[in-house]
Amino acid sequence: MKVVITGGCGFIGLRLAQRLLELGELTGPSGGPEPIDDLVLFDMNPPPALPDTLDGRVTVLLGEISNRDEIFHLVDRDDISVFHLASVVSGGGEKDFDLAIRVNLDGGLNVMEACRARNGLPRLVFASSIAVFGGSGMPKVVGDTVKQKPQTTYGVTKAICELLVNDYTRKGFLDGRSARLPTVIIRPGKPNAAASSFVSGLFREPLNGVPCALPVQPETVMPVLGYRSIVEGFIKLHELDGAALGDDRALSLPSLTVTVAEMIKALDRVASDRPLGKITVEPDPFIEEIVATWPLDASHERATALGLPREESLDEIVQAYIEDYLD
Amino acid sequence: MKVVITGGCGFIGLRLAQRLLELGELTGPSGGPEPIDDLVLFDMNPPPALPDTLDGRVTVLLGEISNRDEIFHLVDRDDISVFHLASVVSGGGEKDFDLAIRVNLDGGLNVMEACRARNGLPRLVFASSIAVFGGSGMPKVVGDTVKQKPQTTYGVTKAICELLVNDYTRKGFLDGRSARLPTVIIRPGKPNAAASSFVSGLFREPLNGVPCALPVQPETVMPVLGYRSIVEGFIKLHELDGAALGDDRALSLPSLTVTVAEMIKALDRVASDRPLGKITVEPDPFIEEIVATWPLDASHERATALGLPREESLDEIVQAYIEDYLD
Repeated sequence: MKVVITGGCGFIGLRLAQRLLELGELTGPSGGPEPIDDLVLFDMNPPPALPDTLDGRVTVLLGEISNRDEIFHLVDRDDISVFHLASVVSGGGEKDFDLAIRVNLDGGLNVMEACRARNGLPRLVFASSIAVFGGSGMPKVVGDTVKQKPQTTYGVTKAICELLVNDYTRKGFLDGRSARLPTVIIRPGKPNAAASSFVSGLFREPLNGVPCALPVQPETVMPVLGYRSIVEGFIKLHELDGAALGDDRALSLPSLTVTVAEMIKALDRVASDRPLGKITVEPDPFIEEIVATWPLDASHERATALGLPREESLDEIVQAYIEDYLD
Repeated sequence: MKVVITGGCGFIGLRLAQRLLELGELTGPSGGPEPIDDLVLFDMNPPPALPDTLDGRVTVLLGEISNRDEIFHLVDRDDISVFHLASVVSGGGEKDFDLAIRVNLDGGLNVMEACRARNGLPRLVFASSIAVFGGSGMPKVVGDTVKQKPQTTYGVTKAICELLVNDYTRKGFLDGRSARLPTVIIRPGKPNAAASSFVSGLFREPLNGVPCALPVQPETVMPVLGYRSIVEGFIKLHELDGAALGDDRALSLPSLTVTVAEMIKALDRVASDRPLGKITVEPDPFIEEIVATWPLDASHERATALGLPREESLDEIVQAYIEDYLD
């Protein structure tokens, strides 16, 4: 079978690709396991470098998610699954509304329409976000049954795509599943335009011996999840029998609710033998304003009951990052 | 100022137009009352007949809501307000998914983009629906704080437009307000493709001396509202200071929760001096399946606190229909 990862040259996309190659197969539209013979990483930009664990099954295809013809060309087999990760991020969406609509909404519709055009009811895993929650009256703990009142354009487009994935699935156009991601840590490489970029930065920059300016207060609290669990969660969600999800195909992934101060402590514990760059608190009103709209805590009973994983602790997440990117 | 009513040649559009002409003015983008000098009824089809209470301030413009150029041409003044009523209805949307997306989603975006292109922050009143609610786990009473899990494409597109109206308002592109309508009674004329069409029919056909086949059981319960209150509600919502709505510009209109049997009793009471067509129960699985997804009861504290009206009783609604359309 063919597997498409949109946003496939991003950090999570590349890790998902590596993991899929290790597994070698997924449940295909037939309902049984099928070997992956073609894995396409679709993205706007090539990755800085392709990991050398990728092999001949992998192709990088550069293109524009908002171009329907390109996406129909990409989703060109009936034995196909799509992981739809391509997205404008939160800070980027606040700065360019039209781009967020074009990439996140039009792009999402293009992927769904392309799946619909195939025979065989392709499985679609869509990366949503807990940024779908927000606004006045938001409960302290958000979850699958909470009203979505997003306060960023990013969150609005994610909420819209959750609704559309549900409806395309209800109509029998595709077999969709949406995973609502908390803040993903620890992203390697450079900071990006996501308002949450600093959360990875506060681990990554000190580990690189680089000083780090925290744009929020250490008491700031948020749900986070390590990238290994994100990737496993996407794959588990893909493999589930859709009926197990009922009439709401979207769920919040498991998460750990922690403060920024706890993250810094975990870093100090796990990397005590390394020279760490210094962390200073330098509040940034643009970032603080967005972060203030985020949920404090996220429930995940449904995802946990379905076997979707999370790390045991922040320490485990820091340790994995050191193994994967530093050692 | 100019006022545009999309779907303006429909039943509610025409009644809203008549009421706006009576009032003669609305709050304009300046914040003060401005006389209405141009009232455009935009629709796909002309009305069967224009009420003779309309006058020279009114123009009918035929066009396609999904055509962005036409909508930009329609919304061509800075001193403008838009009542966006154009929509594919619930049954129609289930039969033609693509049409529902094109008219309700693309059409909604066109109206919002056209408002955004103006200077002066036009007020936009969007007709949403309690069909945004549904699915397993739906509470017995739905309302402004309940998770939206629509089970029709119609409901999905209404939920999406509520999200977009909120975001366009948050971004300062327009000044939006969304009114979530319960089942509207009593529509004159012919049945339409709405799954709820029978609810008006069970009053209208007997009053016309015509027999009526009920497609659902008499115990079926639902929230309803008379068209006079719908029209007054749209206008009140337009006139409100947007700040009174906070960060969620969408609210459920007030409603009366009644059974089909109670509706028939009200008809018998109010029209006891008229020869009534006979009502028979002839369940229609297509209609019953859609109706089964609707909420049983709807709360409306916020709308009521803001002064949006509802009729005192079903009897008042039947009496108004007899006055407006039969006598």
